Amino acid sequence: MLTCLPVSLYYEDNDWKTFFISGLFTILIGLSLYLSFKDTQNKTLRKRDGFLIVTSGWIIMSLFGSFPYLLSGNIPNFTNAFFETISGYTTTGASIMNDIEGMDKSILLWRSLTQWIGGMGIIVLTVAILPMLGIGGMQLFIAEVPGVTYDKIKPRITDTAKRLWAIYLLLTLLECVLLYFAGMSLFDAVNHSLTTMATGGFSTKQDSIAHFNSPLIEYIIVIFMFLAGTNFTLMYFGLHLDFKKVWSNEEFRWYLKFILLLAIVLTFFVQHVTGNSWEQSFRENVFQIVSIVTTTGYASADFTTWGSFLTLIFFIFMFIGGSAGSTAGGIKIVRHIILIKNSLLEIKRQLHPSAIIPVRLNKKAIRQEITFNVLAFIMIYFIIFAFGSVLISMMGVDFMSSVGAVATSLGNVGPGLGIVGPSESFSEIPMMAKWLLSLLMLLGRLELFTILMMFSPHFWLNK
Amino acid sequence: MLTCLPVSLYYEDNDWKTFFISGLFTILIGLSLYLSFKDTQNKTLRKRDGFLIVTSGWIIMSLFGSFPYLLSGNIPNFTNAFFETISGYTTTGASIMNDIEGMDKSILLWRSLTQWIGGMGIIVLTVAILPMLGIGGMQLFIAEVPGVTYDKIKPRITDTAKRLWAIYLLLTLLECVLLYFAGMSLFDAVNHSLTTMATGGFSTKQDSIAHFNSPLIEYIIVIFMFLAGTNFTLMYFGLHLDFKKVWSNEEFRWYLKFILLLAIVLTFFVQHVTGNSWEQSFRENVFQIVSIVTTTGYASADFTTWGSFLTLIFFIFMFIGGSAGSTAGGIKIVRHIILIKNSLLEIKRQLHPSAIIPVRLNKKAIRQEITFNVLAFIMIYFIIFAFGSVLISMMGVDFMSSVGAVATSLGNVGPGLGIVGPSESFSEIPMMAKWLLSLLMLLGRLELFTILMMFSPHFWLNK
Repeated sequence: MLTCLPVSLYYEDNDWKTFFISGLFTILIGLSLYLSFKDTQNKTLRKRDGFLIVTSGWIIMSLFGSFPYLLSGNIPNFTNAFFETISGYTTTGASIMNDIEGMDKSILLWRSLTQWIGGMGIIVLTVAILPMLGIGGMQLFIAEVPGVTYDKIKPRITDTAKRLWAIYLLLTLLECVLLYFAGMSLFDAVNHSLTTMATGGFSTKQDSIAHFNSPLIEYIIVIFMFLAGTNFTLMYFGLHLDFKKVWSNEEFRWYLKFILLLAIVLTFFVQHVTGNSWEQSFRENVFQIVSIVTTTGYASADFTTWGSFLTLIFFIFMFIGGSAGSTAGGIKIVRHIILIKNSLLEIKRQLHPSAIIPVRLNKKAIRQEITFNVLAFIMIYFIIFAFGSVLISMMGVDFMSSVGAVATSLGNVGPGLGIVGPSESFSEIPMMAKWLLSLLMLLGRLELFTILMMFSPHFWLNK
Repeated sequence: MLTCLPVSLYYEDNDWKTFFISGLFTILIGLSLYLSFKDTQNKTLRKRDGFLIVTSGWIIMSLFGSFPYLLSGNIPNFTNAFFETISGYTTTGASIMNDIEGMDKSILLWRSLTQWIGGMGIIVLTVAILPMLGIGGMQLFIAEVPGVTYDKIKPRITDTAKRLWAIYLLLTLLECVLLYFAGMSLFDAVNHSLTTMATGGFSTKQDSIAHFNSPLIEYIIVIFMFLAGTNFTLMYFGLHLDFKKVWSNEEFRWYLKFILLLAIVLTFFVQHVTGNSWEQSFRENVFQIVSIVTTTGYASADFTTWGSFLTLIFFIFMFIGGSAGSTAGGIKIVRHIILIKNSLLEIKRQLHPSAIIPVRLNKKAIRQEITFNVLAFIMIYFIIFAFGSVLISMMGVDFMSSVGAVATSLGNVGPGLGIVGPSESFSEIPMMAKWLLSLLMLLGRLELFTILMMFSPHFWLNK
């Protein structure tokens, strides 16, 4: 928050008091909590303490993070301010703003920062904390293929986190420089690089990336969105030029091939529907694919105007998600790989009922419990999606907008369909629905189980 | 087909020649095949022969079954005639007819008979044949709870089939009598009882059951739809007054409670939206629930006019399906029970990673492979649903109608959403889409794996 204070002074938008008060208040509360519980900090944490800390941490951050919006008057309504903040911290990118250019610059920077901070949190969470709690896509690698992503990086959490954060910071800076030289103002370049690397998708423009009308900027952002959706430990190897290791990762290969294949195939449809040039069709198509698959949520065009076939395709993309260990949300590609392999193997199993046929990932058989967990995760994901859609539609939102809003929130994408489509905002959604969508963002971000467990009686009974 | 011949003569609709030629032709082809392969009939069938016979049987039946439509000129187009026939034999009930009352009576009887025959086929298939091939919901009972549904009924297939067919016939007759006394014409009573017990849903009226405008008829049909969606082996116990055994079946208890709960809860919403009387709202609601959950597909009202919330709810119902061992299609309730139980247990498993916690059904732990199979089934179901919707939308059908058409075809329900909604027909769907939907009906009807296996290289390599 204090980072935004000098920015506010520079742009003379009168929000320096907002950030001073918010920052001071947050520091004071944080400091008093720190001092009160200082003596307990070396105590061993139990597993369930971990769940509670992670979940409440995200909620408390979102509460405090909404102060600048409220105090500055840029978002006077508490529900809206909280929605915007949790959409930031969860790197979703769903926004209630209808006049982004009319907001104060320092507030927009704060908005982008929430995503960048959220992205940092996610890296350490998915790579270091959740696996210890037995949750999330990364446990697949840790339990099964330690050599590939985890072991050779120094094993201690703080070290791992620092190294991955260094990559995160480096790529953010690099993108910022490139965007600046591609023609963005420094302010826009900073903001967009912050929200790209977090796969967040908040823009400083109402029309998102379409505003800049620059192929170069779009291609730069596509590349960085792709990187942000890549497993960060793989990028570590990549930066050490160990490309063999990067390529040996099955999830990365599928991620790359999947996007390349669809970038080519769907371009024909986009060209057919829009009648634009081949280059523009390719660019708009690949931008939208990467933006949604990595759950970033920028828009350089409105896919919902591309006819029902492409709308449906892009809607389905919301359920894919980037790589495990990236800042992307959603189901994650590695889970889909296991799902598809297991589905194909199930047919084989039916033909050979007595054989035990495990799913193989990165050339190693994975334990059946892991496959079970992945299938259960995807099922629960869709059950929550169905229930969520029903609840939202009950609040008076139409069919398409309901399923779109829930899919995009749960997957931490950003824009949905219908009244929450890429050219629209979440401002028209009823207040109660915003709270539900906020919960869904958090559920999706924390890989479902982190939060769901707390609703289980076993959680509270477990000594 | 020959059954319809005297009916044609009685109504003087000039189709007796149609049925004579179709029947004779079918008999001749059948007889010549029977005689050609007579010597091989005692040979042991391998598992994969079973898959081939079941699948090709359904397709060949649908080819021959479409002759009466074509020859009589009631459906002059081959694609449409095949669609109507396979929709009949799979007991789906999706229709391309826009003027049902204008069709010949004997043709309408043939149409209803395809569903009734299809229902008979399904009973013997799910109870006797598929479990031997290791497919389908019934294997759950056979492998795990033999006492409840299978053992005490005489174990030989023909005996089992005969007994269940007797129940099927008995209930059809009973419903026919009741509908007749409730005010239907004999012709309508016969047709509707044939298509109720098959959970088919073909009606002799363009407006389906809404045409009769009779609460009594609607309540009678609700009860028989419910029975048709019940495991037929349970009905056998029920008829022998062994209600304890019926109630000890977990799937039946969930089935009953689920429908009762929603019949009550959703009535409030229906009343709110339609503004009709409470009795009418309850009746229309419960009729639509039972019709869709049992995958019958009759309509006494158009749920797609009840607002987005109820439309979405009823759309989701298309994924439920009746009980295993009934004539209903869809995913089936027992699979949902296992899915939900396993999802809840997964949370428990995460808290106790070393414990082995199996899903329990009817108070017995079920083998992990079965749970695996159920999860894989549901996953594949949704993958096919997603791919199917994309393909249909690619053929120029709008978003809602595409997902509606695919969900209703795969689940063997009948009406969908949008242009294939309960007040519409499938006539406006492109020809190519009709072939795809026909395939989906068959896939859903034969529990996915029966057909999918044939696409697997393992199937053809397996000696």
